[in-house]
Amino acid sequence: MHTLKLDLGTRSYPIHIGTGLLADDALLATAVYAPQLLIVTNEVVGPLYAEGLRERLPSTARLLTLPDGERHKTLATLATIFDALIEGSCHRDACIVALGGGVVGDIAGFAAACYQRGIDYVQVPTTLLAQVDSSVGGKTAVNHPRAKNMIGAFHQPRAVLIDTDVLSTLPPRELTAGLAEVIKYGLILDGTFFNWLEAHIDALKALDADALAYAIRRSCELKAMIVAEDERELGRRALLNLGHTFGHALETCGRFDRWLHGEAVAIGIALAAEVSVREGLLVPQDRERIRSLLGRAGLPLTAPGIDSDELLAHMRLDKKAAAAGLKLILLEEIGRARIVPSPGEDALRPILEQVLAA
Amino acid sequence: MHTLKLDLGTRSYPIHIGTGLLADDALLATAVYAPQLLIVTNEVVGPLYAEGLRERLPSTARLLTLPDGERHKTLATLATIFDALIEGSCHRDACIVALGGGVVGDIAGFAAACYQRGIDYVQVPTTLLAQVDSSVGGKTAVNHPRAKNMIGAFHQPRAVLIDTDVLSTLPPRELTAGLAEVIKYGLILDGTFFNWLEAHIDALKALDADALAYAIRRSCELKAMIVAEDERELGRRALLNLGHTFGHALETCGRFDRWLHGEAVAIGIALAAEVSVREGLLVPQDRERIRSLLGRAGLPLTAPGIDSDELLAHMRLDKKAAAAGLKLILLEEIGRARIVPSPGEDALRPILEQVLAA
Repeated sequence: MHTLKLDLGTRSYPIHIGTGLLADDALLATAVYAPQLLIVTNEVVGPLYAEGLRERLPSTARLLTLPDGERHKTLATLATIFDALIEGSCHRDACIVALGGGVVGDIAGFAAACYQRGIDYVQVPTTLLAQVDSSVGGKTAVNHPRAKNMIGAFHQPRAVLIDTDVLSTLPPRELTAGLAEVIKYGLILDGTFFNWLEAHIDALKALDADALAYAIRRSCELKAMIVAEDERELGRRALLNLGHTFGHALETCGRFDRWLHGEAVAIGIALAAEVSVREGLLVPQDRERIRSLLGRAGLPLTAPGIDSDELLAHMRLDKKAAAAGLKLILLEEIGRARIVPSPGEDALRPILEQVLAA
Repeated sequence: MHTLKLDLGTRSYPIHIGTGLLADDALLATAVYAPQLLIVTNEVVGPLYAEGLRERLPSTARLLTLPDGERHKTLATLATIFDALIEGSCHRDACIVALGGGVVGDIAGFAAACYQRGIDYVQVPTTLLAQVDSSVGGKTAVNHPRAKNMIGAFHQPRAVLIDTDVLSTLPPRELTAGLAEVIKYGLILDGTFFNWLEAHIDALKALDADALAYAIRRSCELKAMIVAEDERELGRRALLNLGHTFGHALETCGRFDRWLHGEAVAIGIALAAEVSVREGLLVPQDRERIRSLLGRAGLPLTAPGIDSDELLAHMRLDKKAAAAGLKLILLEEIGRARIVPSPGEDALRPILEQVLAA
């Protein structure tokens, strides 16, 4: 087991990465213990891992199983978590265990942020995407039907337990989606890591344990570094949103059902790379390397049938927009990104139309 | 106009108290301005004050009118605020103006805490209770059907504008309810203020402007002092909950419809005083002074028909409860309170039965 620390003063916490963590009684006893526990999972992950985990926790631990999928990341599903906490007479010293992918982590974390104005929670991410990105950093949220992650809170977990064994049961489509966020880290922060990904993408796709362990650890290191610098995204943390303004708008266009988050982010990265080239920031050769790696990972680069005007309308509601206008994360080279005012919609529209339909 | 400062470092804010504040263009321009504004009010306050306020704000300011009453302080009503923010394409630099009593302030403040993970809001309290208590200190929440204020956040406003002119249109029952929280401050923190209240309760009931202005200012001073010391209620802030463990449970028993919050708190203070005497902390003469002042204010001291077992069941879910048991705020003398482990339910039950039916 390797342990990173996310350094946030009194709210610092460990990120444990390794094999067999879900069966490590000593770790569970220290990282997960609370007088009252509620495990929140979903109908796919629950049957695989929830009972095994519950048996290793105090006998009073309760279990809540949510429906699976981004389209259930709503206020209505959130309310069922509050009901379960009340049903269990949970107090302020209770703790939620978020056992699942990004949807479970985001919604369970948001429930922890709000219940009694804030209780503890532990992230136990079971998808690659959640292990490398959403479980770390304390962003929690639910979707509004018209905009992704619009209702939420910054609320840091007490600990993150990344058991890489669970990736053996991850559907291939989910593994691929997670690679989009891994590639993102290389693009915005670490060109050397991007080079490594170019060399090891086939190993990652083949679930090579050493390659996965390194990719997860490096991703978490980069994420932890940025979050420690800028917890509430007043500056550099926004870089982590490369491809996400486009991606979130695509997810909304697709009613949170057409793409997995990572797939929409991959299309968004392809769009951001194209805009970066058109703005004279990125050389076309780098755009091609990016598109090539995303493609080798098995990620989509286009979104046939999406209307550019609908996409632009959703982008106007992006959280990085302000009265002064939208901002985008663009690339200057592989390994270096910056936050810039977005080109106008008239300039974006033809780029969107070209890339989405390509 | 008198301005207090609530000192919370980078989250400090002013509390403006005076007459004519809602018509003070210079104040509104500095305290309320934002590129996008949403005024949240209710169907009682709106017709009296919302249009006048909107005319003094930028023409883009939007208005949302909620139904009136504690029983509407729900996740469902909260969702209508998110809808209005999305409908107005509100960005992170938008600001909510909470124009109303404690219900409006709590729910609009919670919407501001969650929308895009946190936007600004300004409290413009229009009831005595909101002016002396709920608008100051950043506690926001909605109710769960089974427990008061169970879902919420600590989220400080940008400013509090207390225009005492609006009390002229306040229904007498609402004025009386607010006095419960005013009396609470004297009881827990300031015996001299309690003495002053004994001398001026008739003037306050008669809407004497000077008396009201002093009572509001002193209450806000005491509240601001405690919140600055202990923003997230890890210690002394819990003193402000004198009578509230009982009061919240009574409100829940009454389905958030039988009592105004201040009325339930008054009954709760009577209960806390009785428990304080039984525990040997408070002399019976002080209990009688307390009951007398609450009675002269026009507040209820009993709750006929309430079942003590139902009340105790709701109290188990109190936010001050933990796995280790419930805590109560009890009185040592008028002007001094402390946080103590609650007597057991078997000891509490006869006290509840006696006071509630008395």
